[in-house]
Amino acid sequence: MNSNEKILLAHGGGGRLMQHLIQNLFASCFAMGQNAQQDAALLTIGSENIAFTTDCYVVDPLFFAGGDIGSLAVYGTVNDLAMMGAQPLYLSAAFILEEGLEINILQRIVHSMQQAALTAGVKIVTGDTKVVDRGRGHGIFINTTGIGCLSSQAIIAPSMIEVGDRIILNGDLGRHGLAVLSAREDLNFEPQISSDLAPLNKIVQTLLQNGIEIHAMRDLTRGGLASALNEIAQSANIQINLRESQIPVSQEVRGACELLGLDPLYVANEGRFVAFVKEQDVDKTIEILRSLGGYASCIGQVSSRARALVTLENNFGQSRILALLSGEQMPRIC
Amino acid sequence: MNSNEKILLAHGGGGRLMQHLIQNLFASCFAMGQNAQQDAALLTIGSENIAFTTDCYVVDPLFFAGGDIGSLAVYGTVNDLAMMGAQPLYLSAAFILEEGLEINILQRIVHSMQQAALTAGVKIVTGDTKVVDRGRGHGIFINTTGIGCLSSQAIIAPSMIEVGDRIILNGDLGRHGLAVLSAREDLNFEPQISSDLAPLNKIVQTLLQNGIEIHAMRDLTRGGLASALNEIAQSANIQINLRESQIPVSQEVRGACELLGLDPLYVANEGRFVAFVKEQDVDKTIEILRSLGGYASCIGQVSSRARALVTLENNFGQSRILALLSGEQMPRIC
Repeated sequence: MNSNEKILLAHGGGGRLMQHLIQNLFASCFAMGQNAQQDAALLTIGSENIAFTTDCYVVDPLFFAGGDIGSLAVYGTVNDLAMMGAQPLYLSAAFILEEGLEINILQRIVHSMQQAALTAGVKIVTGDTKVVDRGRGHGIFINTTGIGCLSSQAIIAPSMIEVGDRIILNGDLGRHGLAVLSAREDLNFEPQISSDLAPLNKIVQTLLQNGIEIHAMRDLTRGGLASALNEIAQSANIQINLRESQIPVSQEVRGACELLGLDPLYVANEGRFVAFVKEQDVDKTIEILRSLGGYASCIGQVSSRARALVTLENNFGQSRILALLSGEQMPRIC
Repeated sequence: MNSNEKILLAHGGGGRLMQHLIQNLFASCFAMGQNAQQDAALLTIGSENIAFTTDCYVVDPLFFAGGDIGSLAVYGTVNDLAMMGAQPLYLSAAFILEEGLEINILQRIVHSMQQAALTAGVKIVTGDTKVVDRGRGHGIFINTTGIGCLSSQAIIAPSMIEVGDRIILNGDLGRHGLAVLSAREDLNFEPQISSDLAPLNKIVQTLLQNGIEIHAMRDLTRGGLASALNEIAQSANIQINLRESQIPVSQEVRGACELLGLDPLYVANEGRFVAFVKEQDVDKTIEILRSLGGYASCIGQVSSRARALVTLENNFGQSRILALLSGEQMPRIC
């Protein structure tokens, strides 16, 4: 890593630069081990196995169609725990407030967190407040850190993926990123695009309780589907083949993306995830997911261990490589 | 709480306004219960009792004599766990970086965190990075959240304090706040005042292993000794009488405070704590603390349950009330 470099927005964007920072600085200095590329760390305390995860939320603006920084801070961290197969139990909530922030904005956000915690079934048990001088923050930043318990012994991780596994996606892509962007830039899409922000823990628990053997999961936040699958492909050293026709993107999102020059496969989601399951579990998985709402589908499969690669086959049978994002497509969406 | 109010620096200062915000917003919306005024939440996961605490660090400047935002972020959170009698095990580390930050500054800070984690005996196991646009942050903010295990069954909390308990302080006051302020304002005190920043977990474990029955503890960070004792007095509904002559303040700190119009009893520390112990444990406690370095002393006692109050008796036998800070004496020292 070149010490003369400066931090760019892309260092937080979920793509190549962020990976570089994690691998070459954080993972090498901290005790992250295998956890560095995962959504949460798996730890042992006495006789208990827990998952532990942290996220700062800096979304701009604070409120958007379908959510706000408060519900995002609760569901985002809940989902990181859920992706490890853990049952989220406790969250901490720490605030960095900018001097001059209106108390009623803080109140709205805290109430939204309260409601989100209730919905997800987690308790916010400890907190912190710091205030920075005007012009040194941006209204409000929130950190939530979560603890979940691992009820099952099954390991859910990229290393468990097998050739032939199918990839299930639980709904349509791109709504969160576009909802935030349209609120920030005051774009009035018709109909309005609302974030897909939602807690995933109960959905995952239902899959596990119904005996679905999930090999790996990942929620599709920063960098979207393409970045999540590229990380998994690298981590598990597998080739993933996707079929474009099977990936649900709504008309509104597709239209807005064309207008803005964005690729929906790289746009952030906050209530979408992929699960890697055996072929024989595909129908049951989709059925359960659809019964819980959302248009789940099987979007592709793990074809080989020859190369770490994600390919996308279009409707005409042509394949292209879906690369890891190099720059920053859309900053501060979470 | 008045919704038309705005956030002031004092809302993060450890005094009256911060208490108000915690009691009237966070504690009433979140599941904090008795934990709202404590350094950490006490939780149960399966058969294990753990302590869980979070803090954001926004210290300005990032580097100061005796430490930097990195070591502060590790030791500050370690100390919050230690104050509950917990053994710190795991930390998360989440960064909010400002676009344009030099990578070599981030590297120095991450290396400092690595060293601090090693010194304190904790593992940094998970993390997050967000980048905010230039002018919307301030170089670097860090959140660390910690998990500790409670080995002993003894409860350490203000509710355990008894009338007659003595208050032990582990060293001299005011160095952290002045070290940060002098770095920020480019004040060149002679000799230089260095922060007291230090991990307290091994000190606390040594006291407990030697059979010292600690009723309550608190580290003396934002708002200093006076604020910490006022919080405890209110929480336990006790009157605390301090003797000024027993409270160690170095010549340098006293001189600098006089120059700046500050009261050292309200200045932040990052390696100082008070322990409430039985009278018969005073000598042994002081002996152990001095054997570990630092000028420990017995600075006062719990005199009654008549009123929630902290008084300070000066060298001439006159007493005054040491109130909770109303405004903000010194922002962004942690």
